[in-house]
Amino acid sequence: MTQWDDLSASELAMLEAVFWSAGASRLALAKQADFSPSKTKAAVAGLVERGLLQETGLQGSTGGRRAESLRLASDIGFIAAVDLGATSLDVALMTPDLTLLAHHAEAADVRSAPGVIMSRVRAILREQLQACRATASQVVGIGMGVPGPVEFDSGLLVNPPLMPGWEGFSIRDELREDYAAPAFIDNDVNLMALGELWRLHRQLPNFLVIKVGTGIGCGIVCHGEVYRGTDGAAGDAGHICVDYEGPRCHCGNVGCVEAMAAASAFARMALEAAQSGESPLLAQYLAQRGSLTPEDVGQASRSGDVAANAIIQRCGQLVGRMLASLVNFFNPSHVFIGGGLARIGPLYLASIRQSIYHRSLALSTRHLHIEYAPLGERAGLVGAGALAMQQMLRSTVRKR
Amino acid sequence: MTQWDDLSASELAMLEAVFWSAGASRLALAKQADFSPSKTKAAVAGLVERGLLQETGLQGSTGGRRAESLRLASDIGFIAAVDLGATSLDVALMTPDLTLLAHHAEAADVRSAPGVIMSRVRAILREQLQACRATASQVVGIGMGVPGPVEFDSGLLVNPPLMPGWEGFSIRDELREDYAAPAFIDNDVNLMALGELWRLHRQLPNFLVIKVGTGIGCGIVCHGEVYRGTDGAAGDAGHICVDYEGPRCHCGNVGCVEAMAAASAFARMALEAAQSGESPLLAQYLAQRGSLTPEDVGQASRSGDVAANAIIQRCGQLVGRMLASLVNFFNPSHVFIGGGLARIGPLYLASIRQSIYHRSLALSTRHLHIEYAPLGERAGLVGAGALAMQQMLRSTVRKR
Repeated sequence: MTQWDDLSASELAMLEAVFWSAGASRLALAKQADFSPSKTKAAVAGLVERGLLQETGLQGSTGGRRAESLRLASDIGFIAAVDLGATSLDVALMTPDLTLLAHHAEAADVRSAPGVIMSRVRAILREQLQACRATASQVVGIGMGVPGPVEFDSGLLVNPPLMPGWEGFSIRDELREDYAAPAFIDNDVNLMALGELWRLHRQLPNFLVIKVGTGIGCGIVCHGEVYRGTDGAAGDAGHICVDYEGPRCHCGNVGCVEAMAAASAFARMALEAAQSGESPLLAQYLAQRGSLTPEDVGQASRSGDVAANAIIQRCGQLVGRMLASLVNFFNPSHVFIGGGLARIGPLYLASIRQSIYHRSLALSTRHLHIEYAPLGERAGLVGAGALAMQQMLRSTVRKR
Repeated sequence: MTQWDDLSASELAMLEAVFWSAGASRLALAKQADFSPSKTKAAVAGLVERGLLQETGLQGSTGGRRAESLRLASDIGFIAAVDLGATSLDVALMTPDLTLLAHHAEAADVRSAPGVIMSRVRAILREQLQACRATASQVVGIGMGVPGPVEFDSGLLVNPPLMPGWEGFSIRDELREDYAAPAFIDNDVNLMALGELWRLHRQLPNFLVIKVGTGIGCGIVCHGEVYRGTDGAAGDAGHICVDYEGPRCHCGNVGCVEAMAAASAFARMALEAAQSGESPLLAQYLAQRGSLTPEDVGQASRSGDVAANAIIQRCGQLVGRMLASLVNFFNPSHVFIGGGLARIGPLYLASIRQSIYHRSLALSTRHLHIEYAPLGERAGLVGAGALAMQQMLRSTVRKR
């Protein structure tokens, strides 16, 4: 029995509407929830009385009567958000409207045993709750992103190439040791897409988020919802072929974009440029640091290194080839580029853009925006928080 | 003022639910429309009283009380459906549950002036109404598919490469000369997808329909609805690159699947095989018929011609390459292959399948079905009828 269990279905729907459009007026909420004004008024009144919604002053006038705006009450409880990447772990505690209360980031190797990573997650959350003078029972929902395909209903990873030890491991059971609140697991790129959708107050119904880092993946928003596909594998764009004569990928095929343009390809090309003498600057970094990363290529490029520029253009062009196919097929309004390689700089984005425009049909790119993901490196964490709130409210409705 | 205008929103929603699942019980309809049993009962009673729904006997018992099933009354009126392809025109008159009353097919050249084609459409519909002893005022909705991108809300073609003369031409205005009923226009492949979705009673939420003929296009069903994209250009898969060293396409890029594997590529390869002496059988057909078509290649293949088999395998493999990218990205449950080339025979389907399985990720193909479109050449026409009914009911709700 939680505080949600005695809410009506329309009160839960209204809470979700407020969550997606914080600061909206009653009128806007009625429209979003597809409720009549009287049904909206009743649901809002019940929620305000229970202390779950609060009024936050007046909205800017549009000429008529001024509308009060509504947001989720901050004392509803806490949301825990976890974003596990291939090489990093982010853990945060948030208010129900996703304001960050505590955030901790550390390096992590996803190839570690799941027990090791989950112990860290649990320990960090305990510390964060303590710092916020809160208890585990005040956590109302947990969202976690992982860098592999997830069967959404069970929350289990399925055939995760980067983290084979997690197959069949229940993250939910692990979190249940500490928390009564429900936990929801999703692919990390789906959560970046959900995070951007939340930031946009769901105003864009059809867009893509590409994560380019250790791997390459795509989050899909279609008809205003994250689209996960039949097996939870939608957006697995890293193995789309961008060169039918290209090198062999670990998946067994040739010319996969992930093999040719993700972080390890950057590093490999940088090493070649350093060792061949083509780039004295990269050779110098290599001598200083012992190895080269995509960030080194970005730094060399900003210093005017021609070879570094060529690497960035080559990788951007290949990612753009893959995206051109997706743009022709999906005709999104926006493509947002995120992940570690989004730190490389403007030349990378320009190369991706050029390649998409070169290879896509005019009609599909007429209104297309191609940008770095506005939430940047926080997109996955915000998405994990959004998943926790959204699914917690929806699962309360479904339980009936 | 039509017979629909005095129906309540829940009655219209119930009509749409019956349309999508003809023969369903009240219980199943309540679930589909997300209505309570009492709301369902009231809406159904009103519709039966008005003669818009009729009961059709008892459903097979599942142990409990036997449920009566419901369908749309046949005297609601008529649906007109038009499927214009690059080289063909199909026109039909249907009952509101899409039973064919009259069907006429003829060759057409979509490059003709729109006035010429639309005169034929109007003439054929007049004849069909006459044959059914019906009048134009009894037509309640018109659906039409065209082989180009359509801005769905306006019903206008946008940048149609196969039919440039239709840009800005209003099909709706033309039909309004004869009919008061609303007309809805969509891309032909979207309508194939809608037709299959209707046939499936909406039971598969995520699938693709590929049309391979003069061009190559893809209809997308996502979250249980046809997905049209931001500019109505979604599914424009014909210009996805399948060979980065390939020949130049009329779009300006190289290696587009439409340039390398659609009908004209089949014909070109067949001509080469005939003229080079590689295929004596195709040479014989060429001598007899003056030119070669994909059907000739299919016939030669069925007679065991090795060169014809190689052409089919080559084209199937290229279409499969494109589909492998889409399967990795979209993770559909089904891919249905339709269009003129679906007549080629089982070797073509086998080649497409082999290529998809070869290049897609294991997880994405774990439950994937790849089949010829079950509605075959009628998919577009059924989809046009489904569009007319669906949009007519929805637009009646929206007008309020």
